[in-house]
Amino acid sequence: MSDTTRRTVLGGIGAGLAVNLAGSAMARRPQDRKLGYAVVGLGYYATQQIMPKLAECRNSKLVALVSGTPEKLERYGREYGIPATHRYSYANYDRMRDNPDIDIVYVVLPNSMHAEYTIRAAQAGKHVLCEKPMAVSVAECEAMIAASKRAGRKLMIGYRSRFEPHNKLAIKLARGAEFGPTRIITAEHGFDAQPNQWRLDKAMSGGGSLMDIGIYSLNAARYLTGEEPVAVSAVEATDRSDPRFASVEDRIDFILRFPSGVLASCVSSYSSNHNGYRVTGTKGWIELEPATPYGGQQMRVRRDGKTSDITPPPQDYDQFVGQLDHLSQCIIDDRQPIVPGEEGLADLRVIEAIYRSARERRQVTL
Amino acid sequence: MSDTTRRTVLGGIGAGLAVNLAGSAMARRPQDRKLGYAVVGLGYYATQQIMPKLAECRNSKLVALVSGTPEKLERYGREYGIPATHRYSYANYDRMRDNPDIDIVYVVLPNSMHAEYTIRAAQAGKHVLCEKPMAVSVAECEAMIAASKRAGRKLMIGYRSRFEPHNKLAIKLARGAEFGPTRIITAEHGFDAQPNQWRLDKAMSGGGSLMDIGIYSLNAARYLTGEEPVAVSAVEATDRSDPRFASVEDRIDFILRFPSGVLASCVSSYSSNHNGYRVTGTKGWIELEPATPYGGQQMRVRRDGKTSDITPPPQDYDQFVGQLDHLSQCIIDDRQPIVPGEEGLADLRVIEAIYRSARERRQVTL
Repeated sequence: MSDTTRRTVLGGIGAGLAVNLAGSAMARRPQDRKLGYAVVGLGYYATQQIMPKLAECRNSKLVALVSGTPEKLERYGREYGIPATHRYSYANYDRMRDNPDIDIVYVVLPNSMHAEYTIRAAQAGKHVLCEKPMAVSVAECEAMIAASKRAGRKLMIGYRSRFEPHNKLAIKLARGAEFGPTRIITAEHGFDAQPNQWRLDKAMSGGGSLMDIGIYSLNAARYLTGEEPVAVSAVEATDRSDPRFASVEDRIDFILRFPSGVLASCVSSYSSNHNGYRVTGTKGWIELEPATPYGGQQMRVRRDGKTSDITPPPQDYDQFVGQLDHLSQCIIDDRQPIVPGEEGLADLRVIEAIYRSARERRQVTL
Repeated sequence: MSDTTRRTVLGGIGAGLAVNLAGSAMARRPQDRKLGYAVVGLGYYATQQIMPKLAECRNSKLVALVSGTPEKLERYGREYGIPATHRYSYANYDRMRDNPDIDIVYVVLPNSMHAEYTIRAAQAGKHVLCEKPMAVSVAECEAMIAASKRAGRKLMIGYRSRFEPHNKLAIKLARGAEFGPTRIITAEHGFDAQPNQWRLDKAMSGGGSLMDIGIYSLNAARYLTGEEPVAVSAVEATDRSDPRFASVEDRIDFILRFPSGVLASCVSSYSSNHNGYRVTGTKGWIELEPATPYGGQQMRVRRDGKTSDITPPPQDYDQFVGQLDHLSQCIIDDRQPIVPGEEGLADLRVIEAIYRSARERRQVTL
């Protein structure tokens, strides 16, 4: 666009933020101790995204693997130098209790297995990092939180965007009303789902696009406001003749109303590509597109009739490393993670309300 | 964005369209006859946007003025060379019947007056161009259509975006499934309403942001699909302590479901600035931002991971001239305008459903 100019964070609105964020980065104290992670479920995300990142961590390291497939244990055990004593199946999963090298269990299983393997890990005395969605129901989330509390262990949900610089800056700008009080949020997430995946089997996934990708729109609306929605209206559109959508929904759009009056219009799709959000205040807007992929975020802001690209202050770790080390650091410092089990539960409460709203064709109050 | 490249319409997807649109532009046959417009209501839009454009028209000219303010009639009558015989008040409005120079009455009054002055114009034997929203209720729209039919005169609604090149190209691309079948539309329209205007008085406006600016989101969703929605869910957020919103709504977001399964998530706001839409198909998207202002439209498309700016084929008239001349040409050719009264009625049907959905907190079926 002709009115788009490029800015660094040293000019304009970025200046003060660069200082603040640099200050908080420097406050991270070095730790000699690296906590040991067991990764549970050796699918694409675990093996291609998470496991390579553990080698870059400051406070975390990969020490154990869990899989139901012996060949995967053998292959990745060899690749990552994990001895046979630190390779587990789902049958002997609970024996991680006796392995003091394992501090944290990272649950990267299909959604319907999150609750069981989180609870069993807590009962084995382990802290847990569990992928989102936290589980397939509010009841499961509550049971997971209770199990971790009973065990005196921490529970964190894998909301990696909270450790990503563009999202962190967007949160700061939005909650700080840098573009005036927020009035409208729009958030879109979707992709064209490939057939024959566990994601498309409701027994495994708990739901369709909303559980998998639409949750990013929902979670963004919540973290950009810092509020919990009080009402939701949702409309679903699914072609049940498409074999992908025999048991789960394709598209489900929803509107959230927040206590401050913010409205968030959110898109969730399994048949079109979307990844972005915009926060519009009384004086302008903040936009991330793409907003929540593994990398490549882009940020624009608009004020006084001018649209500018914004680069957030650099940080010396990426969102994956940031997430992994955050939980380790919270355990070392004995403090609550910024995305504890309660954060996953809050999303599931809204997700259940979104599904109810679409099904009953009415606004649901939270 | 780093993956944005600039293209002219001669490259990529624009090539075929340039040919098609150029063909239709050349098909416009010159007309010696200019039909006479009477402009009713001499506010900002009429005097600053419409009246100057009538001088640029091929088939239209300004021949009469109607106002309740004698000073305005005098000032604009002098400026545009309209003699006293062709200046009318609301009291002698019906005497336009006896003025053969007036072919078309353009109603640019507050919304609540559209029905009365359209019907009186039709009864005076005049064709009518009426600003949007067509009226403040479905019942009024139906009465207006009936009156024009009874009089054997045409009735068109001022949906100027339908004559604007970027919107015309977006319609062609979206309905032609150039980016795959449409799955999701997002449309946002809003501005920060200034206090003490008739727009904020429900008795004059019939409603708040939805009647005034949100109607662009609604109308775009309808013209981009070429379908009528079958269901709507809406959520309103209005701070009633803000003196601007004593009688009308501030924000009202709504989701439309169309028969083909398209979902449209629409924003309407009187407290933040928005002007754009995006049509996402299975293979990419088409975006206009801004989409519907008086000028300055920008268009981007995305396919195969690349975002490109697109310039539509040039046309030798702007949206205002196109709209004014379209009705004249339709009268000359005795054909139906592309945005007849029925188009305004269709929007009002949905608007009433949106308000009902927000009020009753349920999905409304259309």
